Amino acid sequence: MTQLYSSVKPTPMLKDELDIVIPTIRNLDFLEMWRPFFEQYHLIIVQDGDPSKAIKIPEGFDYELYNRDDINRILGPKASCISFKDSACRCFGYMVSKKKYIYTIDDDCFVAKDPSGKDINALEQHIKNLLSPSTPHFFNTLYDPYRDGADFVRGYPFSMREGAITAVSHGLWLNIPDYDAPTQLVKPLERNSRKFDLSLRYVDAVMTIPKGTLFPMCGMNLAFDRELIGPAMYFGLMGDGQPIGRYDDMWAGWCVKVICDHMGWGVKTGLPYIWHSKASNPFVNLKKEYNGIFWQEEAIPFFQSVTLPEECTSVQQCYLELAKLVKEKLGKVDPYFNKLATGMVTWIEAWEELNSAEGTEAKAPNGKSE
Amino acid sequence: MTQLYSSVKPTPMLKDELDIVIPTIRNLDFLEMWRPFFEQYHLIIVQDGDPSKAIKIPEGFDYELYNRDDINRILGPKASCISFKDSACRCFGYMVSKKKYIYTIDDDCFVAKDPSGKDINALEQHIKNLLSPSTPHFFNTLYDPYRDGADFVRGYPFSMREGAITAVSHGLWLNIPDYDAPTQLVKPLERNSRKFDLSLRYVDAVMTIPKGTLFPMCGMNLAFDRELIGPAMYFGLMGDGQPIGRYDDMWAGWCVKVICDHMGWGVKTGLPYIWHSKASNPFVNLKKEYNGIFWQEEAIPFFQSVTLPEECTSVQQCYLELAKLVKEKLGKVDPYFNKLATGMVTWIEAWEELNSAEGTEAKAPNGKSE
Repeated sequence: MTQLYSSVKPTPMLKDELDIVIPTIRNLDFLEMWRPFFEQYHLIIVQDGDPSKAIKIPEGFDYELYNRDDINRILGPKASCISFKDSACRCFGYMVSKKKYIYTIDDDCFVAKDPSGKDINALEQHIKNLLSPSTPHFFNTLYDPYRDGADFVRGYPFSMREGAITAVSHGLWLNIPDYDAPTQLVKPLERNSRKFDLSLRYVDAVMTIPKGTLFPMCGMNLAFDRELIGPAMYFGLMGDGQPIGRYDDMWAGWCVKVICDHMGWGVKTGLPYIWHSKASNPFVNLKKEYNGIFWQEEAIPFFQSVTLPEECTSVQQCYLELAKLVKEKLGKVDPYFNKLATGMVTWIEAWEELNSAEGTEAKAPNGKSE
Repeated sequence: MTQLYSSVKPTPMLKDELDIVIPTIRNLDFLEMWRPFFEQYHLIIVQDGDPSKAIKIPEGFDYELYNRDDINRILGPKASCISFKDSACRCFGYMVSKKKYIYTIDDDCFVAKDPSGKDINALEQHIKNLLSPSTPHFFNTLYDPYRDGADFVRGYPFSMREGAITAVSHGLWLNIPDYDAPTQLVKPLERNSRKFDLSLRYVDAVMTIPKGTLFPMCGMNLAFDRELIGPAMYFGLMGDGQPIGRYDDMWAGWCVKVICDHMGWGVKTGLPYIWHSKASNPFVNLKKEYNGIFWQEEAIPFFQSVTLPEECTSVQQCYLELAKLVKEKLGKVDPYFNKLATGMVTWIEAWEELNSAEGTEAKAPNGKSE
């Protein structure tokens, strides 16, 4: 085995090129379990809810923390595009980061074990996914052809084997699957009992979601190339004062996928798994979701049929075009989409402001940087 | 566990609705290993090469055997559409079958073991795949949502959860992966040594290949609904007298996928695995493949851009339309494609003839039916 394994290149860990973004309302005890894997990275913590509440961060982590007061101060009137009382606020962290890559994780997600019982370094797998190409233009039946020991199968065109740049790595969950409220309600067994939960199946694969295909992107365990696709990673208007929740990551996923398809970039899903510790309350979830469940029946066909004009050559241009189309086509479904389209435009304005040369100085978070 | 497992429905084994098609040039000793799984089914053996050679079939199997003389006798001049000295001849078996489902397997494929060490009943998994719906219109990140214990994830539109009818189940291979000759030549380790072959990864998943996405369909371990998609399962003109080999299943896969997309049917890939015992000679393969490797660079973009007219409402109509387009667009690439297009038309004529009420009597194979 030695001979082969020694030829497998170690994964560059990108210490200075990746920020971990965590939205939270509580003390971040969950970081203790992640210490061996996260301690070397810079954390951006986006505190949701009451800004006067102090949040404890375990010793030894390098972080900056933003609460609602910071967001309002830094963005001014443009803070309207950042959700409040919803984990959608995490996208503020993407905006203030100065790194090339982002990994975002929920604070109820723990280190999972692979079938051999070994702790899974989720971040390492995400980095592997992001640093190797994708295959959005033709399906490889043996999954990721760039993985050590794998390859393209017979019949895979040679001209396509270079692949596409990877923009997004979508990781999965063991224990509690990411179900909607109706499914949670109907399948209590899959929620309550680890033993009986057959959906805990560990699938040892990473794959590219083909061009032209949408997917439900979950924000629980997600990494992306911020320099490439960051401006499209807007988690929308959710939570406080909005008629919808729990569709923040879905919204981002539809927009991101359409834009990646247009730009020729790849989106991967599969490994790594994290351990999702507990299901959220299905009754509360139902209240947040019911509009989304209804509206997605219109929104998904809209995104499936969207074609961005060739003139859109940057993510910002694509995103503003998408905002225009959302107003035009989905505004009819509910006035909420007009508000959301405005939020999309404000988001891009705020992104540009913070990510220009001058924008950098505006930031002054609570917290510490070592 | 009992409680949950007892609620899982047993798979109907479709004894009287499925034929197993095996192309071969040798004694079928490999059937001994498959006895517990195949013995209850009817086999259609398509003997390739010298028809005077007698082929031994292990005792106790129910089979019919066709050699080249039988094919010529049954099809007359239309036998020109059936390849000789190439496993593409297997599609003759699809044509003479009267069953709803077909499972086709190569004679160098053995029973694989799952990670727990249990023998995999490949046929049972194919039947599960074919009898449960597909999801070609939206991607489910937890793979097959119809599998026991799995479901649709949050954000999957409810209107799409009924899924689509499944037409094809494409199984995979442990041990020797299905690589092309250049990859075989470049990666001898992955061919020679089981121990070192990391590509032996068992991926515990079945998934639908999304609408609009082509894939390299391998004929080694393949099941399909013959009544639905049979007329498109033509394995082309390969082998003796043809400038190409080892593209029979690829050709069928491109045609089948385009037609399934048009008809709204699903194609699944993943489980079950079989054990592929030995790699074929890469030097011989290279000779067979080199034209295909070159031509697929034109053929795949052709199939990716094909749109079938709405008027085509049967697989036969779709297939004849495709034949017309192949002549029109690929005839320029090489005259071979004109010949192939003619073969496609002849195949449909022969299919219609054999599968009409009168056609049934024409068949009189060598062999025995119990």
